[in-house]
Amino acid sequence: MEKLQTYLYREIPITRAMGIRVGRYDDSGLILTAPLSANINDKTTAFAGSLATLLTLSGWALTHLVVQALGRQGDVVISDGRIRYLMPVHQDLEAVCAMPTEPVLREFKTKLLTSGKARWELHSDIRVNDRPAVTFSATYIARVLPG
Amino acid sequence: MEKLQTYLYREIPITRAMGIRVGRYDDSGLILTAPLSANINDKTTAFAGSLATLLTLSGWALTHLVVQALGRQGDVVISDGRIRYLMPVHQDLEAVCAMPTEPVLREFKTKLLTSGKARWELHSDIRVNDRPAVTFSATYIARVLPG
Repeated sequence: MEKLQTYLYREIPITRAMGIRVGRYDDSGLILTAPLSANINDKTTAFAGSLATLLTLSGWALTHLVVQALGRQGDVVISDGRIRYLMPVHQDLEAVCAMPTEPVLREFKTKLLTSGKARWELHSDIRVNDRPAVTFSATYIARVLPG
Repeated sequence: MEKLQTYLYREIPITRAMGIRVGRYDDSGLILTAPLSANINDKTTAFAGSLATLLTLSGWALTHLVVQALGRQGDVVISDGRIRYLMPVHQDLEAVCAMPTEPVLREFKTKLLTSGKARWELHSDIRVNDRPAVTFSATYIARVLPG
């Protein structure tokens, strides 16, 4: 994950200003964090823009890691997203992007390798006291060069 | 608009790191801008997170200004949003939040002053060569103290 962390700070400078850190990545998904202090708003809660950015990036990063593991050059973009703010976030931000089920993951990889392009919908959230405070569903498109 | 500009940089520090500037505000709506350089990504286009933040903030700022003009203490939050990324943005960012029609505006103000709370849906976009590159529709909720 250190490689992704370095990549983010070098290629997307605002992620450094936000203090975004790459956390755990495993079969269950990917975690990104950011301190409240750098992302605070006028109500001393997390700024909606920062919450949206962290969630947007969580799905991008998960897709990026899945594509990278295939050993191909490629890129990932977000196509659309839906965000719901359910309650204010008074603490450091932790966004969790859930790994899709095994069949969805397999289909995504197969499509990407055979056609050079694949899309999927990912679900991320930021939780407070184990309850979702902000939820995000978005479509990401990956492209790879022929191998 | 200088008051809003000062408020943003003081109360939401990440807006300063992004270089967000408050532009024109009139009957047609509100413009927020941000330089590409501070909001660039690994594809040397505008970072999706920054685009989402600028659009999120544009509707918040427009609602904030409408509430302020009523001369009441109050606050504004976003409840949900839908974003569509139609094409990459290779230039400085300019988000335009459209002012709702006069009847919608009147109803929003009346509801806010009589019940202390009102919500509305706003539409913002970021255009490239006069075509929408990113579109955003979101619901904002305003609350004011009894006058």
